[in-house]
Amino acid sequence: MTNSASEFDLIAEFFAPLAMAPGAFGLRDDAAVVPARTGHDLVVTTDTVIVGVDFLEDDPPHTVAKKALRVNLSDLAAKGAEPAAYLLSLSLPRADRAWLRSFASGLRDDQAKFGISLLGGDTSRGPLFVSITAFGHVPAGRMIRRSGARPGDRVFVTGTIGDSGGGLACRQGALLERYRVPEPPVAFGPKLLGIATAAVDVSDGLLADLGHVADASGVRIVVEAERIPRSPELRALWGDSIDAILRAATAGDDYQIAFTAPQADATCIGRVEEGTGVVLIDAGGREVAVPRPGFTHF
Amino acid sequence: MTNSASEFDLIAEFFAPLAMAPGAFGLRDDAAVVPARTGHDLVVTTDTVIVGVDFLEDDPPHTVAKKALRVNLSDLAAKGAEPAAYLLSLSLPRADRAWLRSFASGLRDDQAKFGISLLGGDTSRGPLFVSITAFGHVPAGRMIRRSGARPGDRVFVTGTIGDSGGGLACRQGALLERYRVPEPPVAFGPKLLGIATAAVDVSDGLLADLGHVADASGVRIVVEAERIPRSPELRALWGDSIDAILRAATAGDDYQIAFTAPQADATCIGRVEEGTGVVLIDAGGREVAVPRPGFTHF
Repeated sequence: MTNSASEFDLIAEFFAPLAMAPGAFGLRDDAAVVPARTGHDLVVTTDTVIVGVDFLEDDPPHTVAKKALRVNLSDLAAKGAEPAAYLLSLSLPRADRAWLRSFASGLRDDQAKFGISLLGGDTSRGPLFVSITAFGHVPAGRMIRRSGARPGDRVFVTGTIGDSGGGLACRQGALLERYRVPEPPVAFGPKLLGIATAAVDVSDGLLADLGHVADASGVRIVVEAERIPRSPELRALWGDSIDAILRAATAGDDYQIAFTAPQADATCIGRVEEGTGVVLIDAGGREVAVPRPGFTHF
Repeated sequence: MTNSASEFDLIAEFFAPLAMAPGAFGLRDDAAVVPARTGHDLVVTTDTVIVGVDFLEDDPPHTVAKKALRVNLSDLAAKGAEPAAYLLSLSLPRADRAWLRSFASGLRDDQAKFGISLLGGDTSRGPLFVSITAFGHVPAGRMIRRSGARPGDRVFVTGTIGDSGGGLACRQGALLERYRVPEPPVAFGPKLLGIATAAVDVSDGLLADLGHVADASGVRIVVEAERIPRSPELRALWGDSIDAILRAATAGDDYQIAFTAPQADATCIGRVEEGTGVVLIDAGGREVAVPRPGFTHF
């Protein structure tokens, strides 16, 4: 990890207080030691948020920090893992202390909320982006895969879907807040162990992400449009037409968990069958055309 | 990790063949399981290379890949760790298949050279940068720190210093190649265990990085300018004046290892004393003014 002179001062001031894990060595070394837990596997994921792509130019730095962290915690939760620590790679155009203070406060709040600690990282001058690598633990051999869905399972989702997409469209109120600061069901993640046959976090779009589960599991997933949970705020914005539901189910950036299981304490939105792919059906059981199942970078 | 439809195709074509570790699940899941080794600590480091900052706009993609990987392997080596696996976060402006093919070939060559495997990652559309998180193993509790240097130790460095800085200045020949593709002493890293009292990789500049060791260890480090190893190519470019040596010792981007030890099989460049900071002395033992000990991002 790179700690030049003035970077080192910034790291000492803003980030070292966040590095409470023993293996972080106060961010004063080239590397860190990842905390191990006996009888557990170490699960790791990495996701990057880039200005103008994953967050807005005028988003407050503390929400950028929380989003960067939470898009990773969402992956851990979907795998049944309990989060433990994370690495931070931060690039920003200039060393703006007010920006850094707000950014670090967002990390600090989320560290307390989710019981995690900064382990290491690096800072660069460059375009504004945040790349986080998050670590969690699952009992050995128990990580929930995308590939375990079986015909006869039902399909579930946590929380509500489409809020973030609505927030990006309307740029105000509770929906914008949801775009800026997603609420992944971090505590629910480990409860999926022994229940879920397959799980995925909803990042690209509900239908796209269930498509990954269908592909990896070799099954067909049928989603009932009317059952997809949507918030009152989103229904007020977009209404209840099938187009509105389709929009919510393909907008992405939700960071909820979609999973398959025989039975579970979450919203059931469909079923797993023999076959391939994902289909969306309306209240009459008719298949709804899905021109684009989710967000694509390219 | 984010795998949208067309990203998923790119990942399957170019990166899945590189993901040979069992915990990578063929890059078809949200997360990976990091390989553990009994009796060892898992050491982790992360570093990002950004176009126009850490590599040149017209550098071949396969050298960009190698540089991104090697700046991380250098950190592991300096800690005495044997590299095992890495995560890749790649952001690029457009899905350019020729670029990706060359980039992946650079990773493939280095995986074979260093005995490592891709474990996971994510891809985004955005400014060109590569953020890598690398994992290695050291015997439990044995990671070499920056903080162990003691008065009476000698100071050593591997390889030659300043080549990369020379390459950036002259933009041609062997020195440019060294800027593009550093040669960190990866196999030498684990040999430092039981020899080195402290170690650091030379990334910001030899004097700046030894400054980190001096700070962390609470000692004074004296570097003898004439003993700093410089390649024939660099000496041909910059000459042998004290200014040329100072330039080499502060240019950075070397990715060699500087370490302290009572005795070692590397080039001895100085000694550790009671006190604080780093001083450079000339052949007559006079202190050389160092206006700027290394590269700073801000």
